[in-house]
Amino acid sequence: MPAAPELAARLLACASVTPARGPVFDALESMLVPLGFTCHRFIAGNAVENCLAIRPGPPGSRHFAFAGHLDVVPAGEGWSGDAFVPEVRGPLLYGRGAVDMKGAIACFVAACASIPADAGTISLIITGDEEGEAIHGTRALIAWMSERAIRPDLCLVGEPTSVHRLGDTMKIGRRGSVNLWLEVAGREGHVAYPHLADNPAPRLVALLAELDALVLDGGTDWFQPSNLEITEIAIGNPATNVIPGRASARISIRFNDLHTGQALADRVAAIAARHGGTARAVISGEPFLTAPGAFSQLVADAVQAEVGLVPEASTSGGTSDARFLTALCPVIELGLNNATMHKRDEAVALDDLHALTNIYRRVAAAALEPGVAA
Amino acid sequence: MPAAPELAARLLACASVTPARGPVFDALESMLVPLGFTCHRFIAGNAVENCLAIRPGPPGSRHFAFAGHLDVVPAGEGWSGDAFVPEVRGPLLYGRGAVDMKGAIACFVAACASIPADAGTISLIITGDEEGEAIHGTRALIAWMSERAIRPDLCLVGEPTSVHRLGDTMKIGRRGSVNLWLEVAGREGHVAYPHLADNPAPRLVALLAELDALVLDGGTDWFQPSNLEITEIAIGNPATNVIPGRASARISIRFNDLHTGQALADRVAAIAARHGGTARAVISGEPFLTAPGAFSQLVADAVQAEVGLVPEASTSGGTSDARFLTALCPVIELGLNNATMHKRDEAVALDDLHALTNIYRRVAAAALEPGVAA
Ligand SMILES: [Zn+2]
Ligand SMILES: [Zn+2]
Repeated sequence: MPAAPELAARLLACASVTPARGPVFDALESMLVPLGFTCHRFIAGNAVENCLAIRPGPPGSRHFAFAGHLDVVPAGEGWSGDAFVPEVRGPLLYGRGAVDMKGAIACFVAACASIPADAGTISLIITGDEEGEAIHGTRALIAWMSERAIRPDLCLVGEPTSVHRLGDTMKIGRRGSVNLWLEVAGREGHVAYPHLADNPAPRLVALLAELDALVLDGGTDWFQPSNLEITEIAIGNPATNVIPGRASARISIRFNDLHTGQALADRVAAIAARHGGTARAVISGEPFLTAPGAFSQLVADAVQAEVGLVPEASTSGGTSDARFLTALCPVIELGLNNATMHKRDEAVALDDLHALTNIYRRVAAAALEPGVAA
Repeated sequence: MPAAPELAARLLACASVTPARGPVFDALESMLVPLGFTCHRFIAGNAVENCLAIRPGPPGSRHFAFAGHLDVVPAGEGWSGDAFVPEVRGPLLYGRGAVDMKGAIACFVAACASIPADAGTISLIITGDEEGEAIHGTRALIAWMSERAIRPDLCLVGEPTSVHRLGDTMKIGRRGSVNLWLEVAGREGHVAYPHLADNPAPRLVALLAELDALVLDGGTDWFQPSNLEITEIAIGNPATNVIPGRASARISIRFNDLHTGQALADRVAAIAARHGGTARAVISGEPFLTAPGAFSQLVADAVQAEVGLVPEASTSGGTSDARFLTALCPVIELGLNNATMHKRDEAVALDDLHALTNIYRRVAAAALEPGVAA
């Protein structure tokens, strides 16, 4: 079995701009089958390929899962070379997806190659739709697994969580996210005759001022305070002498595990109603937390053994597919340095690929030991 | 000289949608020349015709002016007949401009026919651009007159001020109008990383809340309280996960003679600055007041003598060209019933045309008496 850099290069050579299907999954399958994995591949939503690769351990053994995605964001402009022709220059391997996250998937595979088959069940939960709408990706995989009662005990997501040095940061949770569309209706009229009109703008302004003044919480041991941002206000009235008949706005709330998306949606709707308005919510993710414990400790131990530092347990940043996987089992995210993710000349250090392979091997081995809970 | 209904029909037959020039001014000139008027016609801004018609009185006599416009708003949909083919049906004369304000101009002419030439100087200040941008209309006429030191002692504008019955309302003033464009800048960013961004929306909301809460004044003996309306708010951010980099709004203030447009603009700009924003003002008119006195009394007497009611002295509603004419001399507005102005099937009562002719004749005769001030 080649090492992670060679495996990563094979994946990077497949131009798998989201949503991904076909060749990049063929490449992954060709690496995993020799290791004893069976790849269950299926198409969801017409365009998205997903794959559950699984190598069953002895009856009664534990089940550890790696999770990630093979789709990438578009190359964009300004690359030194071809974004889909992987190239090693000095200490770095270049290519779209090098750190986010074909490099990490190569490390999954290389790690699995050195874990004995009788250590336990290992699976790779791999989607082709994480960078896009993420509707037919990990959620479809989870549904597929649930229908077959396939449930890992622990799961590690290989998103690029490292900030300055490999292993300096792992994600033990993510905030939830809800967007709300606010609408206040009134009665249009002429500015010279305000008594005949009903301007909704002052009520929208008062509503937004009240929402902006909300203190949702003071944060928790593991989460920063929940945050509300006004992302849009719109009336759309070109006429200077017309009092508008409606006014609207949109807010975005990133919230910790003291809240649920629905509770926040209800709370905003109640405030909007007091100002004569309405609120329509779209919850794009609930928060999750794998509270520090045995799982985070074994990940931290693996990092420290390989690179000599203790990863920070973070819950900051945007959402990830971990928000879905947490429905299966405790989830932690640990991966490559994210400095070049989604940027031109995305590149990963060859040394990091070797080190991350070893970290993943240690994590999987420890997670398969009997009796490790989250 | 035909009576006002016949003169009005001749003007209504000219389709003089704003800006107006040519035939409708030819028609007016053909009525005024036989009465001893000289028509000084000129084109301003390439498309607008203006006319100062003047009949000089004896040396040292007083000068009274009628003022109005020959342009009309477009016909619009739904007329029973042709908007530009005047038609008498029962007691009414139909046509676009019947009340706003070709009917009143016909009454000007018919009134002048019965005022002796030695009573004093009479002029008609007539523009073809009141319903449009009003940039090259009455303002150009005033400039033209000022260059020739032509200055009336009193001026009556024939806008349709009557609400329920002819003569029930005259305008002795109008509020001023200023629109302000507000802008608050920030720094764009991702909603998951608010500390790296600077959302301008909360500052715009606070600015608008403060402006909306302003009590500009409690009104005066002649004016209702000044009023501020938020007419537009705009961010223009389609992305739910982006903190916007700028936010803007527009307000409209209609204000009485306790304020000037510039003072209000400065006040709003100072409040905007406290919220990190800017305000750009466009003053579309300063307020004016012809405080009740001899002029309003003679107008009221003329109305009462003809129709048996005392007109209310109003300052409500939108702006009119009177805001410009007040630079020349005291101005009062009195005209036809405005129920159908700018609407389909605009029509004037034939009786009202006769009565308004008599009112205008009485006003002009009294205004030309020596010693009448405002
Ligand atoms: Zn990713
Ligand atoms: Zn008019």
